[in-house]
Amino acid sequence: MARWQPDARGRLEAAAFELFRERGFEQTTVADIAARAGLDKRTFYRLFGDKREALFSGSERVEEALVKVVAETDAAPFEAVIAAFRQMAVEIFADRREQVRMRQSIIESSPELQERELRKSGALMAAVTAALRAKGLDETTATLATESGGTVFRVAYARWVALDSDASLADLIAEVATELSAITSASGRR
Amino acid sequence: MARWQPDARGRLEAAAFELFRERGFEQTTVADIAARAGLDKRTFYRLFGDKREALFSGSERVEEALVKVVAETDAAPFEAVIAAFRQMAVEIFADRREQVRMRQSIIESSPELQERELRKSGALMAAVTAALRAKGLDETTATLATESGGTVFRVAYARWVALDSDASLADLIAEVATELSAITSASGRR
Repeated sequence: MARWQPDARGRLEAAAFELFRERGFEQTTVADIAARAGLDKRTFYRLFGDKREALFSGSERVEEALVKVVAETDAAPFEAVIAAFRQMAVEIFADRREQVRMRQSIIESSPELQERELRKSGALMAAVTAALRAKGLDETTATLATESGGTVFRVAYARWVALDSDASLADLIAEVATELSAITSASGRR
Repeated sequence: MARWQPDARGRLEAAAFELFRERGFEQTTVADIAARAGLDKRTFYRLFGDKREALFSGSERVEEALVKVVAETDAAPFEAVIAAFRQMAVEIFADRREQVRMRQSIIESSPELQERELRKSGALMAAVTAALRAKGLDETTATLATESGGTVFRVAYARWVALDSDASLADLIAEVATELSAITSASGRR
């Protein structure tokens, strides 16, 4: 058994991130990551399962943050999901745009990573839907609110990552939510 | 060169569908499909590329139907996408619920097929967004209208496949679109 290592997870994540940037995802092995972190491969596999996972450990924090707001707010369903994404953006994404950009470009370099990201985001959406269902909402309402909120987040996130403006992700989410409301509202119909 | 075969594509699709139901997707080979259709493997590969593709040739018709309505209607963006899905449902899905159900259960049996389905639906949504962009809409509006319409379609489709009601898919799409409008409209906010 490897001895307990203070913050082994954090060190391995940082090492993986550095190496994926320096050499590319495909060209980096788990052995490289462990060596850079001063740990062994076994410790890596015990904590992450596979190489891809080292880029996705943040998704648990994201899920917890989203579910907490959805569970606690008394806003209407869509507004609850938007509030959750905005709060999560403040807690987790604020002031980290450069890091998020780099992570995004690593993901875009690998179909395997894109697939993992799709699966993670599906699991995240399922957790948000479940949190809405737990408040007594029916399946359709919970699904529509979650999926619409997810659409808003993806559009706002893409804009935030791409643009050089100073707008915060939380503000962009609010802006895009208003656009979605306008586009889908019956009053917008001709 | 194989001689030209009348409706080789249709015969191969029908044979693939039958065999996937009888034996399962994994247990069926391209040689089995070709033999059942009275054709050779080369003809199969020339027309479909791979085994999965035999279940997805309908997606071109779906894309054409959607893009045509979006291009021709003068409705507002979200309504244009909903109108396109409803029209496509009438043209392609009406009266075929049993077949659609069987196809759906084949897809759900295989992660490979689910992945192909995800990719096809991503390509479909990109084509709809492009059709809206070609009408002069900005990227955000086009994306939000397409994604919201896609959410409505997926929820309506899941309900249509699952339920034993006589509601048509086109009617369910209209119903779910109204629910989405209500959930995301500013007037629904507390």
